[in-house]
Amino acid sequence: MRLDVVTIFPEYLEPLNVSLVGKARARGQLDVHVHDLREWAYDRHNTVDDTPYGGGPGMVMKTGPWGDALDSALADGYERGVGSPALIVPTPSGRPFTQELAVELSERPWLIFTPARYEGIDRRVIDEYATRMPVYEVSIGDYVLAGGEAAVLVVTEAVARLLPGVLGNAESHRDDSFAPGAMANLLEGPVYTKPPLWRGRDIPEVLLSGHHGKIARWRRDEALTRTAAHRPDLIERCAPEAFDKKDREMLSILGWAPDPEGAAHGRFWRRPPAVEE
Amino acid sequence: MRLDVVTIFPEYLEPLNVSLVGKARARGQLDVHVHDLREWAYDRHNTVDDTPYGGGPGMVMKTGPWGDALDSALADGYERGVGSPALIVPTPSGRPFTQELAVELSERPWLIFTPARYEGIDRRVIDEYATRMPVYEVSIGDYVLAGGEAAVLVVTEAVARLLPGVLGNAESHRDDSFAPGAMANLLEGPVYTKPPLWRGRDIPEVLLSGHHGKIARWRRDEALTRTAAHRPDLIERCAPEAFDKKDREMLSILGWAPDPEGAAHGRFWRRPPAVEE
Repeated sequence: MRLDVVTIFPEYLEPLNVSLVGKARARGQLDVHVHDLREWAYDRHNTVDDTPYGGGPGMVMKTGPWGDALDSALADGYERGVGSPALIVPTPSGRPFTQELAVELSERPWLIFTPARYEGIDRRVIDEYATRMPVYEVSIGDYVLAGGEAAVLVVTEAVARLLPGVLGNAESHRDDSFAPGAMANLLEGPVYTKPPLWRGRDIPEVLLSGHHGKIARWRRDEALTRTAAHRPDLIERCAPEAFDKKDREMLSILGWAPDPEGAAHGRFWRRPPAVEE
Repeated sequence: MRLDVVTIFPEYLEPLNVSLVGKARARGQLDVHVHDLREWAYDRHNTVDDTPYGGGPGMVMKTGPWGDALDSALADGYERGVGSPALIVPTPSGRPFTQELAVELSERPWLIFTPARYEGIDRRVIDEYATRMPVYEVSIGDYVLAGGEAAVLVVTEAVARLLPGVLGNAESHRDDSFAPGAMANLLEGPVYTKPPLWRGRDIPEVLLSGHHGKIARWRRDEALTRTAAHRPDLIERCAPEAFDKKDREMLSILGWAPDPEGAAHGRFWRRPPAVEE
């Protein structure tokens, strides 16, 4: 997979040399090209922004440097026969970046990232490239960053670890939170390792029992408990058939009940009154 | 504000020297301490992980090194009289990190981050420090990363830009997506700057009109349109009184209608049938 990143802060992308992504690059599984947008500025101040049409605070990134930088990256990739590119535009106005989208992007040969600063990039840049390739405007969460570079690191890491052969033995995506499978839509519960006693704290006895069924059930109950506490929205949206009899007993203990009236609105479970918002 | 980060990949935190956070450090507004967890490992292999109790894939980070690393950071900060610390634990099992939480964290004097790798940190570490300070287990989004370091960059950046005097003139948080105010809960629409014509593309005429009322209305309509397309969940949750008459006209044009039945479940608006999930 080829990745291009155009940015005014190339040094922010240093983590792409580290850990999982760094190793994937060293093994040739990822071909990363970081470009300094200012190389495509035209004046001696290397200006890449200007005031917004219509007034208001902040600055807008100019069409010219972005267009020329993207054309240059595209020309290089096309020449090398990389395949079909997609543009990834990190923006708080995008659709949510999810694990599902990470899987979709991991199947593409070439991603081009346009992390912006200030109030964002002149819209015509996105409109122009949208006529030539898929454009994914994505938001990594409901918070405001100083620029899109941190989002590039997040998306790259989420995508890279899904590439074949990238994850090592110490890691696993079988039981990931948000991954498909038995734990679908449930957060993972607590984990423990040696020693059995630390600062007066021991570990749950069941984990020493060697009884796989009981351990699996305990983990499932912990996952349900944690999800109910931290992400009640995930429980609400779970179709009743996603839960087995023991799951429903646990949910009942936690104060949850089926919500026949909510079901029409995609809310299958009703939160316990005490934690209702 | 003081920040401590304990990690096995200190070099991943290099972006804390760059841009907004880097400048805040240079000005003395942020005091950042990055610690290598492996300095608190005990064997000659610098082991910080072990197999999980109860079996299963992946590795769990050990109590010992984390406890000693945190104690060391805490001792240093207490000695310097930094104030009251809070522990920030990035984990996919956490509660969602939001702009509201960024504001809350920005008011604290001292944040200590524990980005984990593998299957996470032995639970007893969190339980131990939770008896001494507030612990925020946060997830930056519904996707899986290789470790918590990217989340540290995200949280740090979201928090740092809210500190007094950190944001420069080129930036602004008045009209941020997710910020309180007229645009509350709406995504920002497109922005434009000079030149007026680029590759055959011009800009919306209204932005040249000089008519502030019309420009504000156009921006509001664009924000509504974009939010309806990318984040219908934000529209659904908006109380009817959040929208003025013109907003409601725009929503009606976009196919949205009030949802009296959904209101009991916190869904005040019904999506247009065509985009219903």
